[in-house]
Amino acid sequence: MTDDAFTERGTGVTLKELAAAIGAELPADVPGTDVLIRSCRTLDSAGTGDVTFLSNPKYADQLDTTKATAAIVAASVTCPANPGLMLLKTKDPYYAWSLALVRLHGHRKHPHAGVHPSAHVDPTASVGAGTVIYPGVFVGPRTKIGRDCILYPNVVVYDDCMIGDRVIIHAGSSIGPDGFGFATHKDADGVWRHHKIPQVGNVVIEDDVEIGSNTSISRGAVGNTVVGQGTKIDNNVAIGHGVKIGPHGLLVAHVGVAGSTVIGHHATIAGQVGITGHIKIGDGVTIAAQSGVMADVPDQTTVIGSPAMPASHARRVYFLFTQLPTIQDRIKKLEQAVEELSDAGDEV
Amino acid sequence: MTDDAFTERGTGVTLKELAAAIGAELPADVPGTDVLIRSCRTLDSAGTGDVTFLSNPKYADQLDTTKATAAIVAASVTCPANPGLMLLKTKDPYYAWSLALVRLHGHRKHPHAGVHPSAHVDPTASVGAGTVIYPGVFVGPRTKIGRDCILYPNVVVYDDCMIGDRVIIHAGSSIGPDGFGFATHKDADGVWRHHKIPQVGNVVIEDDVEIGSNTSISRGAVGNTVVGQGTKIDNNVAIGHGVKIGPHGLLVAHVGVAGSTVIGHHATIAGQVGITGHIKIGDGVTIAAQSGVMADVPDQTTVIGSPAMPASHARRVYFLFTQLPTIQDRIKKLEQAVEELSDAGDEV
Amino acid sequence: MTDDAFTERGTGVTLKELAAAIGAELPADVPGTDVLIRSCRTLDSAGTGDVTFLSNPKYADQLDTTKATAAIVAASVTCPANPGLMLLKTKDPYYAWSLALVRLHGHRKHPHAGVHPSAHVDPTASVGAGTVIYPGVFVGPRTKIGRDCILYPNVVVYDDCMIGDRVIIHAGSSIGPDGFGFATHKDADGVWRHHKIPQVGNVVIEDDVEIGSNTSISRGAVGNTVVGQGTKIDNNVAIGHGVKIGPHGLLVAHVGVAGSTVIGHHATIAGQVGITGHIKIGDGVTIAAQSGVMADVPDQTTVIGSPAMPASHARRVYFLFTQLPTIQDRIKKLEQAVEELSDAGDEV
Repeated sequence: MTDDAFTERGTGVTLKELAAAIGAELPADVPGTDVLIRSCRTLDSAGTGDVTFLSNPKYADQLDTTKATAAIVAASVTCPANPGLMLLKTKDPYYAWSLALVRLHGHRKHPHAGVHPSAHVDPTASVGAGTVIYPGVFVGPRTKIGRDCILYPNVVVYDDCMIGDRVIIHAGSSIGPDGFGFATHKDADGVWRHHKIPQVGNVVIEDDVEIGSNTSISRGAVGNTVVGQGTKIDNNVAIGHGVKIGPHGLLVAHVGVAGSTVIGHHATIAGQVGITGHIKIGDGVTIAAQSGVMADVPDQTTVIGSPAMPASHARRVYFLFTQLPTIQDRIKKLEQAVEELSDAGDEV
Repeated sequence: MTDDAFTERGTGVTLKELAAAIGAELPADVPGTDVLIRSCRTLDSAGTGDVTFLSNPKYADQLDTTKATAAIVAASVTCPANPGLMLLKTKDPYYAWSLALVRLHGHRKHPHAGVHPSAHVDPTASVGAGTVIYPGVFVGPRTKIGRDCILYPNVVVYDDCMIGDRVIIHAGSSIGPDGFGFATHKDADGVWRHHKIPQVGNVVIEDDVEIGSNTSISRGAVGNTVVGQGTKIDNNVAIGHGVKIGPHGLLVAHVGVAGSTVIGHHATIAGQVGITGHIKIGDGVTIAAQSGVMADVPDQTTVIGSPAMPASHARRVYFLFTQLPTIQDRIKKLEQAVEELSDAGDEV
Repeated sequence: MTDDAFTERGTGVTLKELAAAIGAELPADVPGTDVLIRSCRTLDSAGTGDVTFLSNPKYADQLDTTKATAAIVAASVTCPANPGLMLLKTKDPYYAWSLALVRLHGHRKHPHAGVHPSAHVDPTASVGAGTVIYPGVFVGPRTKIGRDCILYPNVVVYDDCMIGDRVIIHAGSSIGPDGFGFATHKDADGVWRHHKIPQVGNVVIEDDVEIGSNTSISRGAVGNTVVGQGTKIDNNVAIGHGVKIGPHGLLVAHVGVAGSTVIGHHATIAGQVGITGHIKIGDGVTIAAQSGVMADVPDQTTVIGSPAMPASHARRVYFLFTQLPTIQDRIKKLEQAVEELSDAGDEV
């Protein structure tokens, strides 16, 4: 089982056509621009007929040794060590790479169209044209699914939810389970019990959202839980009831957001971040992996750490944290010096 | 897509009836207690005919501006700025709010009764009266499900498990997968391998438990994994084999509890907490979000942090942690002062 | 509902036969080695006819009071306080215990053979002989499942994946959802959007892997995501696209591994660990619970903490972290002493 196991979806285009499709420049008068490019591959696995890309500088060395026919690179990149490699130069190599993948491989071809007969769509739900619903999916009463969506196997969308157009939800995710809402009350028998609060809100997923596998997005207690347009959510994320996530956010795997928190647009929330309830995360905020956010975060701020701190402060804090043994040594030395000075003073 | 999208389940009662139903007091001789209340809404989304509530002091300002007809509040609350707002006074506003939601909206009406034909219940399993089993659910051999339970779509309950009465399990959760039990052994060929240990225990879920979506509760290796009566577990939680959770606990999203740990009654375990295996968490313990618990926690204790520390100590530790740059500055200043004192001493 | 609820799968063997089956020694000339042993139970729940085991020294006291007929123990263990207890001595009690469980209880007997009719296996997929596929499972186009595998209910394996032999995947896990790959690009209208990058790789699960419930393993962007032979993955784990995990690893619940990271063989990664993308974790590495790994880890290293540090350094760091209030007190005292010394100097 090698890298060759991966799906060959491409049929091939000439290098010249590919450059045009992805908005890249080829060096003038280069011979061989009619060569056929068939696949996109990584620097180290590409061979003849493949295009690859360099975006993460960590992999720059591999440009010298890749066996790819062509590489999508930033305008400033040269590669004298690998003269046979055709460089496709572009301002935004990663975006050009995404266009190359779309051109050569395309998006998944589904094994069926529309609602699969072994999915369960409630008769009062509606499903837009062009939407593909895989086996084992459940769509609850009165829920509306937009056009050109994809619900992968065993996705569950509870009652009364609203899913926009071109939404993709991966296998096993659950949209609209009851929020974690209980009123803890001392009952007549003296026992404190958690009494279920009916969760009468819903979930609204706006257009162009993608949601990974095994993610849970709870319905609002009253009112909506909202995932804004174009926001992308990874696998195994948990979103609490009444959370509002603005458009064009990124939430990486295992992120947890507690109830009623509001997140602005273009937020980037890295893996395993936890955000407490009832706070406000501004627009354009970045939150580093494993951070714990317990207070509002202003617009355009990067925070790091648990508890989350502004990035530059957090970097100092965490550096000093790892240096605590040195700090302790310095304190010991100081204590000794002060003792000696005191003794000396006493002698004086 | 606005807040109006949320489910209208209510049919309406008079304010007077509502006050009686939720155990709240209306000011004496207030006119208008026959006004019809139809829905429960948040302070900022409520309008005429709605009841709202104030429990979190963070939202107290909104009482002045809410357009609700009535608000459930603590006995001490007044609102002179919003004279039209009827105040429903009660000792426990959040509990009264839960009763109002039950009275006005009720719990979910299921689209079918009993076991849905596209669920798979093993012929040797039993399902109590009044239990609703949604499509895609799997109930394994010899498993017993009590009365008046709800198993939402694609829930899996493995073989030989015991589910009490009035248990709710949300979509995609898995009850009784094999625990993570392997004997790591150097085989005859010199390779260390992880050998599967048959997990011959089961999971016991007692009465009135609610479990969120995409949560996994592993079966005991030998003996039970137990979730005690009335305990509520959120989404994407992972409970290891042989864990015993006492009655009336709360486990928030992404909590992980490793094997054989015993948790007392009325534990509150906040989001993303990790608890190691083979330890004892006492009764009435509270564990703050993202804490890492590596040792026993006595009854009625609050712990915070990773590693978890008693709350008051942890608060000082985390405060000083965020102040490490200041601590470093103080040490630098001391070092300078001591150097100067030494120099001065030398001069003397 | 007591411990007695657990599955009785055993039919019983003599103690002598059991000793032979698990490679343990019985004391010479002990009477009663023909006694029938029927079940494996924990020290505190075992009774007559049961075998138990002692591996974790934490439970050593219970050897004195267990009512088991026999106990599997290390060669050095004696138990004069419980003379009726037969000791089965072995070099590796936990491994011997696993063999006893296999001998007495065996692995799960499945309620059906082969592909259950309410599973959905694409006609272009292949499923090996002896493989059991439970209801609600989805196997996508062109995916190959090896021999003697078990796919529990509602597992989803996307298109073009390769699953080896004797692989076990627990309920609700998702193998091969699209990786979290988006090219963020400022579109012609001036809005930054996340553009989906087709994920044209796949997932390769090698032989003898076990995967828990509600785990997600994303397909490679280009090329494979690989889980090496004999690796065991717990519940609710999230593996990013293009990750390669070597053979014989252990990944505990809620671990998250970001894209393109490479993990060597025999890694042990404890609960809730997060590992960033594009790094290399060596062979035989151990990572403590809740650690956050942001840089390469050399072979045979143990790391602890967030950020992850070599174990011995991390232990000092975390000890001093919990002592920060004391450190602050020492600094205060030093400041006072230095002030006094300065004053004294001025006086001099």
